[in-house]
Amino acid sequence: MSIVVVGSVAFDTLTTPKEHRAKIQGGAAYHFAQSARFFTDVRVIGVVGDDFTQEHEASMTSRGIDTAGIEHADGLSFHWTGKYEGAMSEAITLNTELNVFGSFDPKVPEIYKDSKYLFLANIDPVLQLRVRKQFPNTKLVAGDTMNYWIVDHKENLKKVIAELDTLVINDGEARLLTGEHNLVTAAKKVMEMGPKSLVIKHGEYGATGFFSDRTFAGAGGSTVPFRAPALPLEEVIDPTGAGDMFAGGFFGYIASQPELTPKVFRTALFYGGVMGSFAVEKFGSERVQELTREEIEERFKLFREISHLDLDAA
Amino acid sequence: MSIVVVGSVAFDTLTTPKEHRAKIQGGAAYHFAQSARFFTDVRVIGVVGDDFTQEHEASMTSRGIDTAGIEHADGLSFHWTGKYEGAMSEAITLNTELNVFGSFDPKVPEIYKDSKYLFLANIDPVLQLRVRKQFPNTKLVAGDTMNYWIVDHKENLKKVIAELDTLVINDGEARLLTGEHNLVTAAKKVMEMGPKSLVIKHGEYGATGFFSDRTFAGAGGSTVPFRAPALPLEEVIDPTGAGDMFAGGFFGYIASQPELTPKVFRTALFYGGVMGSFAVEKFGSERVQELTREEIEERFKLFREISHLDLDAA
Repeated sequence: MSIVVVGSVAFDTLTTPKEHRAKIQGGAAYHFAQSARFFTDVRVIGVVGDDFTQEHEASMTSRGIDTAGIEHADGLSFHWTGKYEGAMSEAITLNTELNVFGSFDPKVPEIYKDSKYLFLANIDPVLQLRVRKQFPNTKLVAGDTMNYWIVDHKENLKKVIAELDTLVINDGEARLLTGEHNLVTAAKKVMEMGPKSLVIKHGEYGATGFFSDRTFAGAGGSTVPFRAPALPLEEVIDPTGAGDMFAGGFFGYIASQPELTPKVFRTALFYGGVMGSFAVEKFGSERVQELTREEIEERFKLFREISHLDLDAA
Repeated sequence: MSIVVVGSVAFDTLTTPKEHRAKIQGGAAYHFAQSARFFTDVRVIGVVGDDFTQEHEASMTSRGIDTAGIEHADGLSFHWTGKYEGAMSEAITLNTELNVFGSFDPKVPEIYKDSKYLFLANIDPVLQLRVRKQFPNTKLVAGDTMNYWIVDHKENLKKVIAELDTLVINDGEARLLTGEHNLVTAAKKVMEMGPKSLVIKHGEYGATGFFSDRTFAGAGGSTVPFRAPALPLEEVIDPTGAGDMFAGGFFGYIASQPELTPKVFRTALFYGGVMGSFAVEKFGSERVQELTREEIEERFKLFREISHLDLDAA
């Protein structure tokens, strides 16, 4: 079933300890779509400027991503400039040019409205909520956010979180959102805000999925958290967008399945890790763009191999 | 098969954000033994002072731990005073009284010399090496260390590491030892120092096991790292000794098996995590002392449940 994703479609200028890239394609909705499209149809809602060429658009449409919801406005596209140092565990923002994104008012094309899966990527919670309201009959709504919205727009953000089925955030965001250092306590507090399931990403240590029985009514529920691994990687080229591509793999897989069962949720966490592991191998979503489904399945097997304790084996 | 462990048998005075305990039993060899004894016979080499009473000794002997190698010297026992703040992720040392431990010269009882498994707990690498030399015919030697020895006694430590089959350390120690932030690169560098396998503990995120083909000659090798989970815990009472109890579960399980196969290594990583998860539930090894094997097996099942992606299940 098709997913609608709303968020930034942008340009990134990135500097890592080894390389520099100027104005490559990025943005949360862009990275999400490039990952999720391996699993299901993806429709994007966003805004771009005059510097977003047909070629840029073709990097999506040529991969089957629906761009009918991408508005072309006068001016320049959102452009983030950032760098990574040392272990590259944190992005350092050097410059944020919102440009046409500063007055973004998401418009949902009529043809998108039959989508049952909605992903609210990291944007202003006011806009997330506005889009969410236009999809009253979804099967599942998931979303992401970031420190900036948690700190300075918490009340608006809480209204969005109350409307989500699944929130996908990282350790730091979970702690900041709840004021709890302990991740189990933090997870409980997040789920009290509304979501029936929660994914907390631990970067190189994988991710933990929390889900309440409510999510799986009639499908055999479980309140036991699930731990999915990350692949131990010897080199990280660029972590930009890895979180979005994790979310794309996670939610894309869920949308490709008839029902959200505990098994589907667990498998989706693995696919999230798989797509995140590819994401960091090249700049932006370069690696994911050239991927094949066979490579994804091969790495999925590797993820099982590195974490599966087969007691029946020799 | 019996394990000989050499290391500190001590007293700890601990302060956590919620509680204070004065002079409770601790020490790396003590905690290791309290955990490993569920899996195999354990023999301890250490030194204690006059303040180490028959009752203190009985906390080991009553659980089947052999204390023939614990020397009683004149003076006081090793006494560490430390505290934990906030998220309790790091122990803050307030006072270290080496006492009789300052002139510890490990003596190996003749009756211990048939042990095929040796664990060199965190002590001066000079002493680790001295004990290691007295066991020329071991089947497997594992060891631990800490920042202090890595920083100030690196050359001596490297001589110990060269003699180990398995090193068990945490993220920070692996990075400090190799100067590499990336854990895969760090692991390769550690294994170039000698060990045929390596366990890197990630605290609340579990552990990664690295093993080279050499370890498993004739048993079907693998160079793929293995990721074992940790249990997401809502409350940590006291992390003191959790690393030693992890090592006790890990190495105790290995010593209980006829051969070290990849499956045994993986299963051992799970048992390490299981014992570490119990360790933090009470002060020192209080929780582990009262454990039953049934509780261990139950938690082992839980560890599989939270990490096992069963593709054949519904």
